[in-house]
Amino acid sequence: MDVPPRVTVCDVGPRDGLQNESTPIATADKVRLVNELLAAGVPEVEVSSFVSPKWVPQMADAEEIFAAIERPAGARLIGLVPNEHGYARARAAGVDRVELVIMASETFQKKNVNMTVEQGLRACAAIARQAASDGIEVGLALGTSWGCPYEGHIDPARVIDLANAAIDSGVHTVSFADTTGMADPLHVDALLRLARRTIPLDRIACHFHNTRNAGFANVLAALGQGVARFDSSLAGLGGCPFAPRATGNIGTEDLVHMLHGMGIHTGIDLAQLLETSAWMESVVGHVLPAQVSKAGLAFPELARS
Amino acid sequence: MDVPPRVTVCDVGPRDGLQNESTPIATADKVRLVNELLAAGVPEVEVSSFVSPKWVPQMADAEEIFAAIERPAGARLIGLVPNEHGYARARAAGVDRVELVIMASETFQKKNVNMTVEQGLRACAAIARQAASDGIEVGLALGTSWGCPYEGHIDPARVIDLANAAIDSGVHTVSFADTTGMADPLHVDALLRLARRTIPLDRIACHFHNTRNAGFANVLAALGQGVARFDSSLAGLGGCPFAPRATGNIGTEDLVHMLHGMGIHTGIDLAQLLETSAWMESVVGHVLPAQVSKAGLAFPELARS
Repeated sequence: MDVPPRVTVCDVGPRDGLQNESTPIATADKVRLVNELLAAGVPEVEVSSFVSPKWVPQMADAEEIFAAIERPAGARLIGLVPNEHGYARARAAGVDRVELVIMASETFQKKNVNMTVEQGLRACAAIARQAASDGIEVGLALGTSWGCPYEGHIDPARVIDLANAAIDSGVHTVSFADTTGMADPLHVDALLRLARRTIPLDRIACHFHNTRNAGFANVLAALGQGVARFDSSLAGLGGCPFAPRATGNIGTEDLVHMLHGMGIHTGIDLAQLLETSAWMESVVGHVLPAQVSKAGLAFPELARS
Repeated sequence: MDVPPRVTVCDVGPRDGLQNESTPIATADKVRLVNELLAAGVPEVEVSSFVSPKWVPQMADAEEIFAAIERPAGARLIGLVPNEHGYARARAAGVDRVELVIMASETFQKKNVNMTVEQGLRACAAIARQAASDGIEVGLALGTSWGCPYEGHIDPARVIDLANAAIDSGVHTVSFADTTGMADPLHVDALLRLARRTIPLDRIACHFHNTRNAGFANVLAALGQGVARFDSSLAGLGGCPFAPRATGNIGTEDLVHMLHGMGIHTGIDLAQLLETSAWMESVVGHVLPAQVSKAGLAFPELARS
């Protein structure tokens, strides 16, 4: 089985996860979550969003969180930014990377930010130019890469065209995102096979949801194409706004457990992660979907790799 | 991506699933479950267990269920049998196949049935001889094939030796079972690669649990080795006796959804299955772990394949 020897995990729980949890979370708990993820060796954390507090009030404490985080050497802190104003706030807060989002589906993009995809790409290019001169990396999440709840199938050629346009405009990493969990391993394989023709592997990431329980099979398909960057959220924080009883993000502990089982290095201390996961479940006050936090490690040696 | 064009799904919910649910289920509901699975096109169903009612009182109605089932042409009804007495009951009840269980782990086998693995193999051979003359097929589930909660790792060479011994003694299909959800895709790939050297592909099945959320990735790894027979349980019925908060069997609707997404034929009507799943959740009275039953189909065409 031909898979990468090492994977970079980006925990999106503090932003993507908590934004989709109904429980309001205290700033101090968010700071603790980020600090514990970093202390466990998670190399990249999506910390918060610099979106207007009018739209997403639960992310209003972005600056406060960034100011309070203990930043270990080498850790990369990410802030989501919706526009140039958000970018300026993120830069001031000291992010290592900004993450932008464009939907591959025109309908979803319109409903999400009331912009066309073309407008989204132009805004992305403007921020990428600014970020290049500021020495800040830019990532782009391409939402609905494997399907849209409004439009259904999305043409893979269109997704790759958008990815290439973003890369050409200065985006460093494109994260293909299965926003509502519609992907299956065959379509993951096909899209990434196409992506690799024009985009270097180390600039490709995947963001899978477990909404229909194929999230980890999709990770395996992506590993098979050499992809070595994955988003996930501790404990599977986040849910799915389109299916209230279903899950969203794949859980970080489950992802790391599977990778360690396969002998793939992550640098993450899984035992420490499980403690943070148990604490997080008590913070949100309901059962979260990750499984390793409930079943424990299959083998003790999987705690480290 | 090289995967089989067609997969045979065996729903083990009525036996393996319900045996591990704490809610007592009425015989009429069990009959309805089996009938609806068969009506939805599930080709194989593990209906009940012919174990002593002293040990497993919730399976005491095995004969009653078999007598009440509407059997569509081509459907295969399976009964679990622990010994020759159970076999005689199963034959009288009219099973198409009996399923035997041996643990690859000596410790687990001892705790499970107070026999050695060697004794289990001898009992299996005796039943297989009898079944051959009765025209009844014999399947063997090899439990703890990828790990044992007592012994840890199980040597793959030992697992394959046991499988070969069983095949030599007249067993038709060996189902490699990840009893407590310890497998990962790399180890699945490795064991099945070894299995294929001596066992024809159409006599290999896999039984994965989703206890640590790698169940569907393990299915994908097995598909990659050409395996085309999988056990699953409707709605993910069953739980995990070793980790009360964790899940057990992979859910049939999630398996079928992923397979249909990959263009793999199952002959199963997924829309019909989802109705039965929703009803089953109301019968057991608690949330069951399958996800497609909560999120719905990703694409309408996935209802059939």
